[in-house]
Amino acid sequence: MRRQSINFKMVFRIIGFLLIMEGLTIFTALPFSWFYHPDGITDFQIMQGTSEFYPIILAGLITIFVGLIGILYTRKAPKNISKKEAYLIVSFSWIAISLFGSLPFYLSGYFASFTDSFFETISGFTTTGASILNDIESIPHGLLFWRSLTHWIGGMGIIVLSLAILPLLGIGGMQLFSAEAPGPTSDKIHPKVKEMAKRLWGIYVILTVAEIILLMVGHMSFFDAVCHAFATMATGGFSTQNTSVAGYSPFIQYIIIIFMVLAGTNFSLHYFMLKRKFSKVKSNEEYQLYIGIIVAVTLIITTGLVLKMNMGLEQAFRDSLFQVVSIITTTGFVSSDYLLWPAGLWFLLLILFFVGGSAGSTGGGVKVVRILILIKNSLLEFRRLLHPHAILPVRLNHRPVTQNIVFLVSSFFLFYITTFVVGIIIMTAIGLDFMSAVGASASALGNIGPAIGSLGPVDNYAHIPDIGKWVLGFLMLLGRLELFTVLIIFSPTFWKK
Amino acid sequence: MRRQSINFKMVFRIIGFLLIMEGLTIFTALPFSWFYHPDGITDFQIMQGTSEFYPIILAGLITIFVGLIGILYTRKAPKNISKKEAYLIVSFSWIAISLFGSLPFYLSGYFASFTDSFFETISGFTTTGASILNDIESIPHGLLFWRSLTHWIGGMGIIVLSLAILPLLGIGGMQLFSAEAPGPTSDKIHPKVKEMAKRLWGIYVILTVAEIILLMVGHMSFFDAVCHAFATMATGGFSTQNTSVAGYSPFIQYIIIIFMVLAGTNFSLHYFMLKRKFSKVKSNEEYQLYIGIIVAVTLIITTGLVLKMNMGLEQAFRDSLFQVVSIITTTGFVSSDYLLWPAGLWFLLLILFFVGGSAGSTGGGVKVVRILILIKNSLLEFRRLLHPHAILPVRLNHRPVTQNIVFLVSSFFLFYITTFVVGIIIMTAIGLDFMSAVGASASALGNIGPAIGSLGPVDNYAHIPDIGKWVLGFLMLLGRLELFTVLIIFSPTFWKK
Repeated sequence: MRRQSINFKMVFRIIGFLLIMEGLTIFTALPFSWFYHPDGITDFQIMQGTSEFYPIILAGLITIFVGLIGILYTRKAPKNISKKEAYLIVSFSWIAISLFGSLPFYLSGYFASFTDSFFETISGFTTTGASILNDIESIPHGLLFWRSLTHWIGGMGIIVLSLAILPLLGIGGMQLFSAEAPGPTSDKIHPKVKEMAKRLWGIYVILTVAEIILLMVGHMSFFDAVCHAFATMATGGFSTQNTSVAGYSPFIQYIIIIFMVLAGTNFSLHYFMLKRKFSKVKSNEEYQLYIGIIVAVTLIITTGLVLKMNMGLEQAFRDSLFQVVSIITTTGFVSSDYLLWPAGLWFLLLILFFVGGSAGSTGGGVKVVRILILIKNSLLEFRRLLHPHAILPVRLNHRPVTQNIVFLVSSFFLFYITTFVVGIIIMTAIGLDFMSAVGASASALGNIGPAIGSLGPVDNYAHIPDIGKWVLGFLMLLGRLELFTVLIIFSPTFWKK
Repeated sequence: MRRQSINFKMVFRIIGFLLIMEGLTIFTALPFSWFYHPDGITDFQIMQGTSEFYPIILAGLITIFVGLIGILYTRKAPKNISKKEAYLIVSFSWIAISLFGSLPFYLSGYFASFTDSFFETISGFTTTGASILNDIESIPHGLLFWRSLTHWIGGMGIIVLSLAILPLLGIGGMQLFSAEAPGPTSDKIHPKVKEMAKRLWGIYVILTVAEIILLMVGHMSFFDAVCHAFATMATGGFSTQNTSVAGYSPFIQYIIIIFMVLAGTNFSLHYFMLKRKFSKVKSNEEYQLYIGIIVAVTLIITTGLVLKMNMGLEQAFRDSLFQVVSIITTTGFVSSDYLLWPAGLWFLLLILFFVGGSAGSTGGGVKVVRILILIKNSLLEFRRLLHPHAILPVRLNHRPVTQNIVFLVSSFFLFYITTFVVGIIIMTAIGLDFMSAVGASASALGNIGPAIGSLGPVDNYAHIPDIGKWVLGFLMLLGRLELFTVLIIFSPTFWKK
């Protein structure tokens, strides 16, 4: 029997549960705080100047407290979650987690305002990596750890969302791989979701640990290795260094490149590789296009850098490969100031802002599989024009894709472009120049981090007006949750019975 | 019985016929040349310095001669024209007409090179209106007349194409209004096409004459009135003045605004108005959106100009209305330097580059009806997500639009955006800065004329490298012929039997 009304109490209960988990997780920053700044334990003030240890404790306690209210106030939840409730839970929990996750920053006094604290936090959880910090290296280690941890948690959340939850709602890139029509026939979220989540988190943790080890082999400190590995696997991009990855050795840059590629790959493929089903990986058309784009664009940019900037071949190759992989996976680490490249070359990067990672990865953007379907469908149009009575469906991995899905993909892309353009209008109205507005809108929506104009690879978002930071934060959320999840809540159809 | 091979001789025969007509038309510039520069008749040199009278005669003779070769060399044409032949005829004739139409300019010595002559000519025939002339007012009247005439002829060609020919091929905005499936059941082009063409040209001529009269009432000279009316009705944008329309009186600017709106309206609606079927006009959803966008954007820009630039209300209103109408109809006349406006306001104009005129008008761009269908389909997606088993078709003027057509419209828009982006890449590779490349690509594809960056309303295209002029010329052609007409010739499917 289908319930028509929305059970808000259940929504709040689930969010309450998530907040409790978040509060406990905030405490994991304390060991780092104590280890690196032991005198902080005797610094009992909060928000009179700057401090770290007790602000973190207080932030965790407040978050747990609010979470408990959510759980205790509402009665036990029914087992079924309707579609509408799912949309609300996903959207509201991301916002709630970001709001309360700002508390450590806000209470510490190291951030200029709540706006700045919230911006940094939602940038973390949406794995964007845009920062308002002028001097990252002056931030104490507990807060830096929490900052990088927001990435890692955001990445875990996204993997579960995109591989298990959103396909049941009929959106997200992954339902393109599902044999059944989009949308569940029942309103239940399968217990199978829990199994999948465990497997995916397992892969995620293993890869993170592997990267930490390899980075330390490259002489990175344990703390920096942990933070950078968190930011890589989540395709987030927060670094502990002011110069991002530019100051590290070629070995470290290549390690990060490898793990960015892995993080931007569909996690189902990692699962197939573990089960030695290599043919399934090689024949995956999305993966082929993903790697193909990386190779092609890197070749073009490398050539351009060697010819136009007289760069040595290895550096040109490393700089282009790093930036191409960083942008297409939407990680956002920078290893060189790409705005110094000839305009045509960084414009190629700007185009990659609109490709994005693979479906079922932590990458943002439009997603490679959607681009693939759009390309295939568009090429088929020529044939359809010459043979209007033939049935010519799009095929993905040799299986036909239903017209409904191609429609959904088209609509998604159009919404994406429209949101991008509206973002530019708003940001120029707020006062940004044209290039910065274009870059900020594209970067936030695609969860990338760096942009162009005054928000390039060596800049930060500190100088944006506060209202602009809230707008960009909303764009980051929209992009991370694949647009429809949030936008549908604004549609009148949603609220009809 | 369907012929599989392409009858090239027939293609050349038809193009030959068109060239003969063009050659004869070139001669119509001679009276103006004689009237304004009578001493030119005794100036017997060609291409030693500058001259006009004999270059025009020679250009006409060459064009007629080549046309005669095309007709005499090939045998009588069969009555049927296949789809493939239609695509070739449309594309090749536009190119041939532009190539030979450059001859008056090239032979006169007033243009720096054949590249410049060809750019100005294809800009004329595609009704773009981008000019490489630094000093329009120093060009003699015969050549200026030919320049404006290329617009008028191009406009006539487009009306017939988009209302009669392209729908039979299954492309163009107008098949959206046709009750039958795209593509004809026979390969014949209907005799009905000739009837339609006559009616549409009649309306076109009447409106042109009406505008000439009203402009002269506003104290414009006969010559300038003719040239500006040609450029308005074709939504082209070539002016005889270096300052475009900025130097004319408010009365003249308002007249031009009115006729730009008329020129950008679906010509079927003009026909309905003549037959007093006013309700069909009022209820036409594309027309509603077209007028709605003009009103809304003008309001926003007027407000912005009054508040941010302290402009008087009438001038702010006139400047915004003029520019909004000029851009959305893709005419490209300028009455003020919109790059001096706050960035958010001229960015709204840049968005209009991608809307375009109504289907079945002389306007370029994506076409309002496609934008309308994309908006309607996207809004329906929300409903489809919540009710995956419901059938929810897009409705246009209360009739359902088939999924095939919505697909075609989506694909068109994606191709348009892709071509725009590829255009930016090529123009930045050629050496233009980012903003100029963005503007040039969008402006050429949309057949508008002015752009942004170094190609703004007070600039011209003279400083672009020659290769860039050829690229932009190709983009103008692509945009004018609705992309598919030209691109399909590059598709392998086209050449298979």
